Amino acid sequence: MKLLRVGPVGSERPALLDQDGTLRDLSGLITDVDGALLADDSVLSRVRDAAAVPGALPALDAEGLRVGSPIGRVGKVVGIGLNYFGHAAEIGAEPPAEPILFLKAADTVVGPDDTVLIPRGSVKTDWEAELGVVIGATARYLASAEEGLAHVGGYTVVNDVSEREFQIERGGTWDKGKNCETFTPLGPWLVTADDIPDPQALGVRLWVNGELKQDGNTSDQVFPVGEVVRYLSQFMTLYPGDVIVTGTPAGVAMGQPEPKPYLRTGDVVEVEIDGLGRQRQEFKGA
Amino acid sequence: MKLLRVGPVGSERPALLDQDGTLRDLSGLITDVDGALLADDSVLSRVRDAAAVPGALPALDAEGLRVGSPIGRVGKVVGIGLNYFGHAAEIGAEPPAEPILFLKAADTVVGPDDTVLIPRGSVKTDWEAELGVVIGATARYLASAEEGLAHVGGYTVVNDVSEREFQIERGGTWDKGKNCETFTPLGPWLVTADDIPDPQALGVRLWVNGELKQDGNTSDQVFPVGEVVRYLSQFMTLYPGDVIVTGTPAGVAMGQPEPKPYLRTGDVVEVEIDGLGRQRQEFKGA
Repeated sequence: MKLLRVGPVGSERPALLDQDGTLRDLSGLITDVDGALLADDSVLSRVRDAAAVPGALPALDAEGLRVGSPIGRVGKVVGIGLNYFGHAAEIGAEPPAEPILFLKAADTVVGPDDTVLIPRGSVKTDWEAELGVVIGATARYLASAEEGLAHVGGYTVVNDVSEREFQIERGGTWDKGKNCETFTPLGPWLVTADDIPDPQALGVRLWVNGELKQDGNTSDQVFPVGEVVRYLSQFMTLYPGDVIVTGTPAGVAMGQPEPKPYLRTGDVVEVEIDGLGRQRQEFKGA
Repeated sequence: MKLLRVGPVGSERPALLDQDGTLRDLSGLITDVDGALLADDSVLSRVRDAAAVPGALPALDAEGLRVGSPIGRVGKVVGIGLNYFGHAAEIGAEPPAEPILFLKAADTVVGPDDTVLIPRGSVKTDWEAELGVVIGATARYLASAEEGLAHVGGYTVVNDVSEREFQIERGGTWDKGKNCETFTPLGPWLVTADDIPDPQALGVRLWVNGELKQDGNTSDQVFPVGEVVRYLSQFMTLYPGDVIVTGTPAGVAMGQPEPKPYLRTGDVVEVEIDGLGRQRQEFKGA
């Protein structure tokens, strides 16, 4: 299923994109698309059953409708650094021996097509196309990558926007460049895990002003999704509605020759992952 | 005012500790102690007025009552690293040129006297007594430390529990050792900012099994509270209900000679800050 949330910021309603591409209103059936929904198999089944009956769910007019983050009340957002062999190579780093993690606050999450604000004083705002993993069941000290995968509720597209000077040159941890306002566009859809048989075979692409900059595949991930979930669960408890942003393939601005093409006001970034839809953000000054 | 939240995990009720030391029920007046309350001066004034009238607020029997985190629905928890001259010296680090930040997920927050879980496989679980700053108004690109202080809603005690191997020896950012389950005891009270005329003159003490380990003062902070808030607001937006844990004074286990006295099952940690009350946690295995 492709679940989404549509409407004005803060009052999005739950919706479903059906197999014909028609947007269907779920607000008669559920209150939100969130961790509680992903953790409740019986409600998810009810939604699935309703979606299978032609005409059971009222159609919504998609025209002019804003798309919000496909998950409401996101818990924490955990980022994985240098998780593609190609990206590690382009910035001259060894692939890490174990996953590198950082955190993004949930308040940085915006819809897939919302405006992204370049922080004041920023000269190194960069893009990162990423597969987002949404946790569907509480994960704590998992024993295997298989168990890890079994705790995934769904997948989505993320632009893990990053300010490289803040992240790397200002002392301390990467978090300083990962948590600026609007820095985590999510969506358009939350695709439930049953519809993604192999998360390690997804093309990940990103364009800036129409020019293809990233063209990777999750098969190049150093640590695959199930292993990432297992690993994280040794250090923190993952709850339904938490999001893991699983790293970016090669092709970020930081990895390119000088002058590196960092984002400026007016730039448009588009991000797409096979089967998960496409985002489009305009960047402007904060 | 000393605000707190009492009752079982997840169903705490708002309360006030009055000048006579009597616990008063606030649930007839407000739904929770949280960012929304701190951001609403008119409701805060109503609470203050009611507290001033003898007998206006029903007394609560404190006997056997659990104390929860004094803030409900914590947003993000931002940590400041190496923010005391004494602590930087004890671990052989230079005082930082600008604040070092890391993040703790809100789901790590527990009450001041709740059990803290030592992660499986941990051999370096450490304590950190800290002044917690609770944001009372949205802070974004503030111009001065004075403005920073004006955005503080209140203060509380924090034990910023830290696993040093996870934090430092496992690759990547400090977040890996800061986000284990139960690693952020908060409370007992949220003391509103008007009752703390100078946050840079507070004694901060911590005991392990009755032995004094940390005995510092916020006057030793490298970056004072107002400056920390101003600085952070250049990199992220701070919202009411966000918590900043402002660093720890000298005396952590990591700073002591080998064998360093990291925490073990059965250890009891107590943390106290002048005017903000005292915590007591028993540590046990996860």
